Amino acid sequence: MRYFMIFTYDGSKFSGYQKQFNCRTVQGELERILTMINGNKKVLISASGRTDTGVHALNQTAHFDLDKDINLEKLKHSLNSLLPNDIYVKKIEKVDDYFHARFKVKAKEYIYIINVGEYNPIEFNYVYQLNHNLNIEAMSEALGYLEGKHNFKSFTPSADLRQDYIRTIIKTRISIMDNKITISLLGTGFMRYMVRNIVGLLIEIGEEKRKASDIITILEAQDRTKAGKTAPANGLYLKNVFY
Amino acid sequence: MRYFMIFTYDGSKFSGYQKQFNCRTVQGELERILTMINGNKKVLISASGRTDTGVHALNQTAHFDLDKDINLEKLKHSLNSLLPNDIYVKKIEKVDDYFHARFKVKAKEYIYIINVGEYNPIEFNYVYQLNHNLNIEAMSEALGYLEGKHNFKSFTPSADLRQDYIRTIIKTRISIMDNKITISLLGTGFMRYMVRNIVGLLIEIGEEKRKASDIITILEAQDRTKAGKTAPANGLYLKNVFY
Repeated sequence: MRYFMIFTYDGSKFSGYQKQFNCRTVQGELERILTMINGNKKVLISASGRTDTGVHALNQTAHFDLDKDINLEKLKHSLNSLLPNDIYVKKIEKVDDYFHARFKVKAKEYIYIINVGEYNPIEFNYVYQLNHNLNIEAMSEALGYLEGKHNFKSFTPSADLRQDYIRTIIKTRISIMDNKITISLLGTGFMRYMVRNIVGLLIEIGEEKRKASDIITILEAQDRTKAGKTAPANGLYLKNVFY
Repeated sequence: MRYFMIFTYDGSKFSGYQKQFNCRTVQGELERILTMINGNKKVLISASGRTDTGVHALNQTAHFDLDKDINLEKLKHSLNSLLPNDIYVKKIEKVDDYFHARFKVKAKEYIYIINVGEYNPIEFNYVYQLNHNLNIEAMSEALGYLEGKHNFKSFTPSADLRQDYIRTIIKTRISIMDNKITISLLGTGFMRYMVRNIVGLLIEIGEEKRKASDIITILEAQDRTKAGKTAPANGLYLKNVFY
């Protein structure tokens, strides 16, 4: 029996999504509880992808297999009553055996939130505290250049040896409300640190240290050293996964 | 030289505002840093009042005395660069020697936030996760009965032996947005647990376990056992202090 779930987590107290020895991880907690529910028979889960330490997820997805056909409402209730406070399962469905939470992903949406107003200690883990103004028009122009199919080698660590750096950014958005800028990126796939590296460059453009159109030459360079810093993890949220 | 400051803190990782031996407190952190800035000559601060463990403050106020006349912008900057991430000083002013941050308070505003939608792990420390609907009309009616001058003995622990339980609630408000209810209470003064005990009763009224008008007889009873439970600390914010 294959199950599919949508879940939310607060990334602040996890060493990222992916299971690691001697670290508190989202996958580790979910597998521990699912294994308990499965009568201590080991359950492994496959998520849509990992998120790094400190990164949050509003609607992360995963699949897993259980021997039994469990009532979905009961399963959701058991999971949520046994999981720690910082993970919550929103929805569970039964899916076909050929469904795969990672391989079947069509698109993902990430959002990144920046406080351009005064420092706010209450949102320290949840909003990047930049605390100075940005030129949103310039950032919006730069986001426009990112849309479409590009080689994003300049936006992922050079240590990443994968062959294919081509990704499609389907849609970008930027908005501001109450001194908080929200940047949204919808794309077919994102490589490690890609969103945070894009945001890091966008901030430099918003600070008018670089021109919006610089993003075109940076994409063409296919060279990580040409882009900007990596924006911190705390402002990043995996918002949606589309199948 | 007497200084007045307005500051914000995230109550989640403090054992309340008030200094205690071997506990991390807001007052303890502020006095530790101010003492450093004062050349290790002990600085004591007087706040508008304490807040309990887990309670947040958007605009808490305090005064303190320093030997030297320090530039206010420099003092604010030094304080914020030395303070931990979960406290932030928004404003510092010089005040007359007779000013007192507690005795001169004219009114205080507290807000309490309740999530009546689905559980959200990301706001666990910042919004009370009730996660079911409430009858806001009934709660609003009940809030109306609270306005004015009343004996609030039913809303503070009976262990509190102070003589005067009379307080004035100047203005109340309730609103809902995105499944979050915000209750605001503006009053001349609040006793220990008073806001959380009022909110606890309001929730029972919103759940239709009690009638809105029950609040009248509960006030008259002057008996803590007649009111409701104490709402959790995490939804409570000291919003403003008025002088």
